[in-house]
Amino acid sequence: MGKQRDILEKLAGAFQIQHVLLRQALAECLGTLILVMFGCGAVAQLVLSAGSHGTFLTINFAFGFAATLCILTSIFFSLLCGHLNPAVTFSMCLLGREPWRKFPLFFLCQTLGAFLGTAIVFGIYFAGIFATYPSRHLTLVNGFFNHIIGTAALIVCILAIVDPHNNPVPRGLEPFTVGFVVLVIGLSMGFNSGYAVNPARDLGPHIFTALAGWANTFCFFVPICAPFLGAVVGVLIYQLMIGYHLEGEVQEKQKEMEERFKLSNMITNEDVPQI
Amino acid sequence: MGKQRDILEKLAGAFQIQHVLLRQALAECLGTLILVMFGCGAVAQLVLSAGSHGTFLTINFAFGFAATLCILTSIFFSLLCGHLNPAVTFSMCLLGREPWRKFPLFFLCQTLGAFLGTAIVFGIYFAGIFATYPSRHLTLVNGFFNHIIGTAALIVCILAIVDPHNNPVPRGLEPFTVGFVVLVIGLSMGFNSGYAVNPARDLGPHIFTALAGWANTFCFFVPICAPFLGAVVGVLIYQLMIGYHLEGEVQEKQKEMEERFKLSNMITNEDVPQI
Amino acid sequence: MGKQRDILEKLAGAFQIQHVLLRQALAECLGTLILVMFGCGAVAQLVLSAGSHGTFLTINFAFGFAATLCILTSIFFSLLCGHLNPAVTFSMCLLGREPWRKFPLFFLCQTLGAFLGTAIVFGIYFAGIFATYPSRHLTLVNGFFNHIIGTAALIVCILAIVDPHNNPVPRGLEPFTVGFVVLVIGLSMGFNSGYAVNPARDLGPHIFTALAGWANTFCFFVPICAPFLGAVVGVLIYQLMIGYHLEGEVQEKQKEMEERFKLSNMITNEDVPQI
Amino acid sequence: MGKQRDILEKLAGAFQIQHVLLRQALAECLGTLILVMFGCGAVAQLVLSAGSHGTFLTINFAFGFAATLCILTSIFFSLLCGHLNPAVTFSMCLLGREPWRKFPLFFLCQTLGAFLGTAIVFGIYFAGIFATYPSRHLTLVNGFFNHIIGTAALIVCILAIVDPHNNPVPRGLEPFTVGFVVLVIGLSMGFNSGYAVNPARDLGPHIFTALAGWANTFCFFVPICAPFLGAVVGVLIYQLMIGYHLEGEVQEKQKEMEERFKLSNMITNEDVPQI
Repeated sequence: MGKQRDILEKLAGAFQIQHVLLRQALAECLGTLILVMFGCGAVAQLVLSAGSHGTFLTINFAFGFAATLCILTSIFFSLLCGHLNPAVTFSMCLLGREPWRKFPLFFLCQTLGAFLGTAIVFGIYFAGIFATYPSRHLTLVNGFFNHIIGTAALIVCILAIVDPHNNPVPRGLEPFTVGFVVLVIGLSMGFNSGYAVNPARDLGPHIFTALAGWANTFCFFVPICAPFLGAVVGVLIYQLMIGYHLEGEVQEKQKEMEERFKLSNMITNEDVPQI
Repeated sequence: MGKQRDILEKLAGAFQIQHVLLRQALAECLGTLILVMFGCGAVAQLVLSAGSHGTFLTINFAFGFAATLCILTSIFFSLLCGHLNPAVTFSMCLLGREPWRKFPLFFLCQTLGAFLGTAIVFGIYFAGIFATYPSRHLTLVNGFFNHIIGTAALIVCILAIVDPHNNPVPRGLEPFTVGFVVLVIGLSMGFNSGYAVNPARDLGPHIFTALAGWANTFCFFVPICAPFLGAVVGVLIYQLMIGYHLEGEVQEKQKEMEERFKLSNMITNEDVPQI
Repeated sequence: MGKQRDILEKLAGAFQIQHVLLRQALAECLGTLILVMFGCGAVAQLVLSAGSHGTFLTINFAFGFAATLCILTSIFFSLLCGHLNPAVTFSMCLLGREPWRKFPLFFLCQTLGAFLGTAIVFGIYFAGIFATYPSRHLTLVNGFFNHIIGTAALIVCILAIVDPHNNPVPRGLEPFTVGFVVLVIGLSMGFNSGYAVNPARDLGPHIFTALAGWANTFCFFVPICAPFLGAVVGVLIYQLMIGYHLEGEVQEKQKEMEERFKLSNMITNEDVPQI
Repeated sequence: MGKQRDILEKLAGAFQIQHVLLRQALAECLGTLILVMFGCGAVAQLVLSAGSHGTFLTINFAFGFAATLCILTSIFFSLLCGHLNPAVTFSMCLLGREPWRKFPLFFLCQTLGAFLGTAIVFGIYFAGIFATYPSRHLTLVNGFFNHIIGTAALIVCILAIVDPHNNPVPRGLEPFTVGFVVLVIGLSMGFNSGYAVNPARDLGPHIFTALAGWANTFCFFVPICAPFLGAVVGVLIYQLMIGYHLEGEVQEKQKEMEERFKLSNMITNEDVPQI
């Protein structure tokens, strides 16, 4: 444990970004990525399943709850952040609540996030179309990729919700917010991966049906191993884009507090002999 | 920034309404407008899309969550306000919690708000019927109008939710409430504008599909420019109907506090020589 | 206003029930009535509309959110109350958290409430079947009755949510809870009355369509007058079954506090001469 | 009452588990059981009803809200617990927030819970297939079993939500959470039992329809008696897997506090003579 903690602290030091505006821009990019990945994922799921895995309502729920989740992920500096929409940034600048110089940077990062989110949806849903075996909707490679994306999205959202340095959700509402995460992943990615972002939830029923005598030719490898790889990806994305910078900020504030305390002690100590 | 702040303060001073009952009546009007715009918008969407963009459930969700949002927008003076329904005002008068003279004024303003909300739904959905090019459901002019309305509705609701002088939503629940706003806009206006109230969410996928080689004849002009115009409209509506009066109220209270403080100092100072 | 307040206080005094167990039993009865009225109303709506105004999901939402609302209505004495289900009462007795003598009384009142709720659903949906004009689904008399029931349900729930003597909902969540009320009324009664529990929401669009030149043969009388009658019914039901007893309880506690204060003053005053 | 309390306390003492990790593992097992029972129950309901009692959306809601409920049930030791997913446990170990030795135990218990949840869904939905009377979808024995499972699930969740030693839900949100429980039970088990987990909700309408003259051949025995048996099962499961250990933990902390207090008193008393 001690060695792991050392490595984690070194990583945090190496990747921490000092510039506040850049941190905010990164958060805007990740937030818009999540919004587009979930929202457009639900649209793609409706279209590609020919209506069996989606309705107009599922798209609306996916966009609505995705907006909640991506604001929660990117809201960490202050309430002024977490716009995820150039029109919102524009309104805040218009009202004088944000400086105008933020507008072009945020617009760029939000568009970049939407671009990356589209690329992920493309990767999940359209890759299968060009695969070698067109008879099977979901090839093994594609399924592996889907499980990694799904679990990474789950882990990024859960880490944002329970981050001890942030607490964006009021105490006691974490279970409800995690419920929203699971709901949105189902609405936008349930068609391909069928909720198998949880190895236990997948392994339990498979063992039961195997014991009950149903032959089970499904490959155990994908739904058991892929989620752990996805967890590593999710931890990396969250820590690199949000986590390390938050930890750094908290540590900086603590150092500042300690130095002020030392300074005030020094002043007091210097004052004492003068009496 | 300094110049912008001066202009904003002058505007606030010019448009602030002193009369408390008139402020409440304005809020009732805006609230009922939002309720009818979202609720009847969902009905119009179901009817005009022949069931593809709406079900009985989407109408129920639209009315339910629209009620939440319009109470949040108009609740600002105290919990006694935000009725949005003459039957509720009537009940409160019956129980002696509101004076009877409020009833006719609130009834009038609520009906006016419902009238204006109907007019907006008519503008969004029925204008296209009488347009010159009947073969395309959504002409360019109509689409432009839709995007302005959608973004204005988004901005009015977001400004109400994060208003620093009001705080109608408990701290930490803002992301969930914004999620409801996005959900309701989708339920009631998603048919025409397809959630393009966010220029980044629209631009990102367009750039991706253009890079991926799909020809893209869709006009970039509407979904990029219209939301910013809509943001200006939304900021104006919120500030003129709610924001300036709230700011004014807070400033008046602060002045009153300062004057009381001065007065108590003067009395103390006058008292001192007498000793 | 002074005269009205006198009458209201006299009514409160006349109808207040002293016995705590009887108050709880009344609340259990009203709560189960609301649960069955909304839940079975959604089932009846699905069946009678042949699936156009309901799905399996609307019934589930109706029962789920109805459970929330009826617990909120009947939870007022302490968290131990608001069971609405003999199996829950039984479990609480089993765990020693409630005395066993409550079980038969609560079972009786819960069954009575479910009986009355069924009768109301019968009144709303089945009365039309035996009416004189079978060609029109909704006769004028039946529509009038529906609007009264719908508005009464709305007012009972709103009064429970904003009751100043109770505060069952955390501060700031009232708008969300009222949104649930509107949603549930739509899910369980929207087929017949079409959300016309709000005279302003009904009058505004009618005036707009009349001005826009559409002939409007719909009778104005029902959706404008019925909600106000429904508001009177709702205020009466809430005050007789919950409100007066809550007010009485609060006043009793205040009196007790004042008498204790007097007593402690008397003791202090008697103590003084002894020194 | 006194005798009942004695028996309850003896039971609590007999079944309380001292080992903290084992308690957490039990909670993980129960939580994953609930997740799979509700989630896969909704899938089975959709498949077996051929789409009449479920859609893609109901499955998504069932999994999302089931995640909320099972986290609430198993979150009791600290926020670090309630993973219900080996990928989440893995992420927490990776970040150094949990020791690695927890991972294999939690993985095992989560898989066991998923296995048991699958067995329950099998019991509810598939048992009927092999029953003697294939013409009736729901035989009397199967219906009895369903009502017991449904009511037990309801009681386990309600006991977790209102547990006085835990309070996982913020004060005032209990009604909303119970509403979610009723919603999820409907989404995952509504097909067979039709919400008859509430004897009053079942008895009331039956009495009304009997009085109104409809012949009612439905057997009263199942929906009236089964829920009470289910309540006993639910109380037993919750107390054995969560309740007793929580009570024990609270009592241990109180004893510790008292002993510290005694010790500090003894030290003070010993100190006194030395002066």
